[in-house]
Amino acid sequence: MANKIKLGILGGGEDSLIGVLHRVASSMHDKYEIVGGVFNPKHSISLDFGKKLGLDSNRVYSDLDSFVKGESKLDKKDRIEVVSVLTPNFLHYPMAKKLLENDFHVICEKPLTTTYDEALELSKIKNSKNLVFAVTYTYTGYPMVRQMTDMVKNGVIGKIQKVDAQYLQGWLNPVVHEKEKRLSTWRLNPKVSGISCCVGDIGTHAFNMVELVTGIKVKEILADLNTLYSDNPMDVDANILVRLSNGAHGTIRSSQIATGEENNLRISVYGDKGGLKWEQENPNYLYHLTDDQPLKVLKTAHAYNSEISNLSIKIPPGHPEGIFDSMGNIYHGVAKAINNDKFFKEEFPGIEDGVRGMDFIEKAVHSSKSGNIWVNLD
Amino acid sequence: MANKIKLGILGGGEDSLIGVLHRVASSMHDKYEIVGGVFNPKHSISLDFGKKLGLDSNRVYSDLDSFVKGESKLDKKDRIEVVSVLTPNFLHYPMAKKLLENDFHVICEKPLTTTYDEALELSKIKNSKNLVFAVTYTYTGYPMVRQMTDMVKNGVIGKIQKVDAQYLQGWLNPVVHEKEKRLSTWRLNPKVSGISCCVGDIGTHAFNMVELVTGIKVKEILADLNTLYSDNPMDVDANILVRLSNGAHGTIRSSQIATGEENNLRISVYGDKGGLKWEQENPNYLYHLTDDQPLKVLKTAHAYNSEISNLSIKIPPGHPEGIFDSMGNIYHGVAKAINNDKFFKEEFPGIEDGVRGMDFIEKAVHSSKSGNIWVNLD
Amino acid sequence: MANKIKLGILGGGEDSLIGVLHRVASSMHDKYEIVGGVFNPKHSISLDFGKKLGLDSNRVYSDLDSFVKGESKLDKKDRIEVVSVLTPNFLHYPMAKKLLENDFHVICEKPLTTTYDEALELSKIKNSKNLVFAVTYTYTGYPMVRQMTDMVKNGVIGKIQKVDAQYLQGWLNPVVHEKEKRLSTWRLNPKVSGISCCVGDIGTHAFNMVELVTGIKVKEILADLNTLYSDNPMDVDANILVRLSNGAHGTIRSSQIATGEENNLRISVYGDKGGLKWEQENPNYLYHLTDDQPLKVLKTAHAYNSEISNLSIKIPPGHPEGIFDSMGNIYHGVAKAINNDKFFKEEFPGIEDGVRGMDFIEKAVHSSKSGNIWVNLD
Amino acid sequence: MANKIKLGILGGGEDSLIGVLHRVASSMHDKYEIVGGVFNPKHSISLDFGKKLGLDSNRVYSDLDSFVKGESKLDKKDRIEVVSVLTPNFLHYPMAKKLLENDFHVICEKPLTTTYDEALELSKIKNSKNLVFAVTYTYTGYPMVRQMTDMVKNGVIGKIQKVDAQYLQGWLNPVVHEKEKRLSTWRLNPKVSGISCCVGDIGTHAFNMVELVTGIKVKEILADLNTLYSDNPMDVDANILVRLSNGAHGTIRSSQIATGEENNLRISVYGDKGGLKWEQENPNYLYHLTDDQPLKVLKTAHAYNSEISNLSIKIPPGHPEGIFDSMGNIYHGVAKAINNDKFFKEEFPGIEDGVRGMDFIEKAVHSSKSGNIWVNLD
Repeated sequence: MANKIKLGILGGGEDSLIGVLHRVASSMHDKYEIVGGVFNPKHSISLDFGKKLGLDSNRVYSDLDSFVKGESKLDKKDRIEVVSVLTPNFLHYPMAKKLLENDFHVICEKPLTTTYDEALELSKIKNSKNLVFAVTYTYTGYPMVRQMTDMVKNGVIGKIQKVDAQYLQGWLNPVVHEKEKRLSTWRLNPKVSGISCCVGDIGTHAFNMVELVTGIKVKEILADLNTLYSDNPMDVDANILVRLSNGAHGTIRSSQIATGEENNLRISVYGDKGGLKWEQENPNYLYHLTDDQPLKVLKTAHAYNSEISNLSIKIPPGHPEGIFDSMGNIYHGVAKAINNDKFFKEEFPGIEDGVRGMDFIEKAVHSSKSGNIWVNLD
Repeated sequence: MANKIKLGILGGGEDSLIGVLHRVASSMHDKYEIVGGVFNPKHSISLDFGKKLGLDSNRVYSDLDSFVKGESKLDKKDRIEVVSVLTPNFLHYPMAKKLLENDFHVICEKPLTTTYDEALELSKIKNSKNLVFAVTYTYTGYPMVRQMTDMVKNGVIGKIQKVDAQYLQGWLNPVVHEKEKRLSTWRLNPKVSGISCCVGDIGTHAFNMVELVTGIKVKEILADLNTLYSDNPMDVDANILVRLSNGAHGTIRSSQIATGEENNLRISVYGDKGGLKWEQENPNYLYHLTDDQPLKVLKTAHAYNSEISNLSIKIPPGHPEGIFDSMGNIYHGVAKAINNDKFFKEEFPGIEDGVRGMDFIEKAVHSSKSGNIWVNLD
Repeated sequence: MANKIKLGILGGGEDSLIGVLHRVASSMHDKYEIVGGVFNPKHSISLDFGKKLGLDSNRVYSDLDSFVKGESKLDKKDRIEVVSVLTPNFLHYPMAKKLLENDFHVICEKPLTTTYDEALELSKIKNSKNLVFAVTYTYTGYPMVRQMTDMVKNGVIGKIQKVDAQYLQGWLNPVVHEKEKRLSTWRLNPKVSGISCCVGDIGTHAFNMVELVTGIKVKEILADLNTLYSDNPMDVDANILVRLSNGAHGTIRSSQIATGEENNLRISVYGDKGGLKWEQENPNYLYHLTDDQPLKVLKTAHAYNSEISNLSIKIPPGHPEGIFDSMGNIYHGVAKAINNDKFFKEEFPGIEDGVRGMDFIEKAVHSSKSGNIWVNLD
Repeated sequence: MANKIKLGILGGGEDSLIGVLHRVASSMHDKYEIVGGVFNPKHSISLDFGKKLGLDSNRVYSDLDSFVKGESKLDKKDRIEVVSVLTPNFLHYPMAKKLLENDFHVICEKPLTTTYDEALELSKIKNSKNLVFAVTYTYTGYPMVRQMTDMVKNGVIGKIQKVDAQYLQGWLNPVVHEKEKRLSTWRLNPKVSGISCCVGDIGTHAFNMVELVTGIKVKEILADLNTLYSDNPMDVDANILVRLSNGAHGTIRSSQIATGEENNLRISVYGDKGGLKWEQENPNYLYHLTDDQPLKVLKTAHAYNSEISNLSIKIPPGHPEGIFDSMGNIYHGVAKAINNDKFFKEEFPGIEDGVRGMDFIEKAVHSSKSGNIWVNLD
């Protein structure tokens, strides 16, 4: 497809949640074409999945080595230009390294690597080349996070004097209290996940958000990590004091044992002219507080937002962006019907619903014009 | 692409909001491949847009007649199977009719037609063929609308005794008070929009929701439509009394002059065993009320939801579905960087953010293991 | 007590919820002294209750006749000046009439009477005298209702073009479906409650709010009342179309069978310059919508509010007014302890909690000043 | 007044916010009678205020010494039994001490004293006597705080594994950045406020709440206090790590420079069976989270709540307790009218509103019974 960027994917196969997220995201602005990749360590599984995606099987490789070799043989104009690395954490480093060395742009899931040293090395390689490298701290893409960042940058809340960030989940609660369950959870296995579970997986999101939104570096931290059980090597709860380089104090709190919490990521930033608050679970709202004015609630897609916020939206105010998913579900239902798969009647509105709607509209106008009388629908 | 359903699109070109929505939606479950269409009355504009989408220019037609002729010449396995009709309301009927007559499945935007008679005729044709026909009442695709429908069907709230539905917008307020602005607004032009503005555009959504969610037909209505100005032929505000066929009473209220409202679609249904409430602007929550228990707030993606609700989701609890858009924005930023287009630094997190994250994680563990001491970040 | 207004009460005895509300309310601004009344048809019960309130038993009368006679004998400076009528609806008219005729100011619970004719007659008598007469539409006393009224009056939202009001309750649901329960519920008995249940009890609140807040009279209404059962003479659900005298349209919806709803009274008013929304269940917030600015949330007690709003508050921003009740509960616990009544330890914080607090404060300062070290509490 | 407890008050005069709160609270359950006190250091001001409260001027004393002497002379049945200490912090200790030594029960504002040693001494005296002593951590009186405490105690959320508490205010922001304003603010003066501003004033509330609600003592803390300016001796922001004696970790965060925050006190407690969350600014809701069930929102006054929660309420579900204030405002308006003071028409609904309500009710019934026709109001 002319003009579109050719995208390869490592990992992110059939059962991968993150895989769906990256594929849909890549389609959203008509900029990418998924061309090939390695979706699974087993080549046959990878091929099947490639077929499902409608890919040329020659571009579905058995491993990264053959991927690099295969793509490099192609004409520059046909070659995959950017690769999304969606594999388990410990593979990020070797894969991203190889990709950079072979001149691919990289989109890498977070955390970047399993150690700081690996990360520094990747950074060194990247900086020696003219390549794009993105780490998918996904939450930074929300329009209102971008709006918040922009407002802080423009001095709307003045000099930052306090930050308060949290990322609370509860999903480890049903796991952590039994040793056997713990052992079978990859996030709690240092060999796969690296040195930290809770800070590495979600604390790092809150940290990234603090530095992004304030535009100020965290200077020092004091951490209290909790593993809950002495034979659990990995933190599942973390309370961290932070001091920014401009002197502001605050906390970053993250937990995976905050029972019942889902993805309760919040950030509040207070300056000497106002405060801004954002919550991931209701991401279309940004709260602007001041000393003496009514609370302002900014919403996506309005003209009062900044350029970077509004270029992030595709639909008018008042439609949560999940509207895409809602429409996607209807298309999904129609596909099932066309394919003669089993489907629920409610999976898409049929022509009878359209007919019914027309009846309603005409009868409503008739009732009103006739002096507000009762009218039967057909 | 093998296995994917071949999709054609009528309308929905470059500047069409609804076009983006349908394209992204069609990509979300890996079931469709957009193959061709007529995106604009001007063929050259249509061709340019087709190029942007990476389409074969032979499949970008000058009008519906050549579309039908062109596709019909192709082998059945290559031919477009389903067509999305995204054109202005008055074109829905002739286009959908022609498509049905030529054996295409149809996905049609609402309202289905501009008159009830046209709708009935389409319905007759459709029913004489073995074709799928969907009308995109988009909001019905939300997981929690489906959950609500399922709960009512399963008797969770007992016999329905009251319904209360609204769809309030304010976007016509800056238009309606000046005659010139009114005349230049197609929604207020009966020739393009049909007999009704407010009821036709949004009241019909609320009505559809009432019948969908309750599973009961509306028997009769009494409507009070307001045009605000006597020289305005079209309703901009509607208050409608409704009675369901089971004897329940209620209202459907819709407005486009509820100043400041965005897409405030809500439906509340009360039965003799409980009540259920849903709001489009916060679509991931479903409120379940009873006589004597705490209010229950159901959320998407949980095991306690019904099959139809959970097959509608792609991600775990606590991520509003807008997370796709957030990731999409990051991919968009990366595409700009790769294409050397102008972009904001904040449009995607770079490798330096990944490095920084690793520093944070390691220092957090070090601080905690060293007895909770202050540690500087690099 | 010098300077305080002498208040008498009819009804509102031991088990009366409304009685507590009026007594506490009368104490809140140091303006009234409860002096006497008739709390119960049985004099002995009335006397016991008067004793509990600390009243002089000579001022606790056996009925309204002796009340009027007794008070009228007293010196003007000792006499009860104003009487709160808290008796069942059908007694409002005769009691208020007698009180007015004998020159008492009156505070009367709503609905004022059981028929419009009675109401008109009371009004005539009142207007012939120089007396104060209040009808306790309680919700009008909320600071943010007053703020809303003031903003509309000052043209902040321009010319009113739509109103939408509701008062939804569910408390009749466990009653209405069984005839025996219905018959034993006084609200469903026309002899006690008058012509209407749902409209009379709560629809009237929503109606009053519409006229108060808009400052515009309702010109005409079209009502659809539902009794749910044909052998139930009283409405339990009402959907009413309204047209204001300035041409705005809207609805007033009230229900007592909206299962699970508590006191969901809401009013939304939209003008050509903006909208205002208020909800009784979260009464300290007022939402101000406009075409193009962020949503503003006004809260009680801020300097940006109007004079009438701010004279209605007694405490600084951020304390819901229920803080009085919270403190009241602590005083209640202390009273039980002093009286050697049974009480929960948690009913008031004891000296040990105060001691503990001082320990915490000193240790927090010590930890911080010592370089942020762990310190044990005693 | 027979049966009521005789209450004295120290401090809390004309302009005191806390004074209103204590007086109204003392009236709420018909248990106290305010008899006398010392309301101001100047006796004449104190006498004026006593007159306003309707007190016998003999019971309005010039200072605590004469108060104690005066009351002690009286018959036991007439004597003040309990005294509320509402004076500035540094006076709490000497006053409470003298009161205890002279056998008065004490209700003391928090913080109890200005040093831990003073607090311990008061505690020793109190424990040697058979007296009641309450410290008004006001927020503990909310029904849903009591419900939360009770649920934790009954094991509803299992073993506590995490706590997260905050009390964020912004009121010092307009003060703290200018030295002169700082110097004139008593809260920032160590001589009046003691060793700490932010922790002492509000951190202590959050701390008290943590220990109350969990029923577990805080074992150790690590504090990071921020004064913002080096020449400011008092903390205005505090981030404190806490560890409970059962091993749970958490934070207590308090701030008076969280610009725009009002009284954002929140507490979240997570156990291995669930979580509970409460927010002071919306105090009638309690959120109950679990691993696998819908979020439950408990509200005041329901039968599903515990005994201690429900004995704390005076009104049915769905009325925020601020309803008392709303009614209080109406009574206030009536008092102004009776006293011929200036008042707003909107300060109380008049008889014309009651008449109007009756018109509405009758017309609604008429419209509905006549086949849902438009009816004019008078």
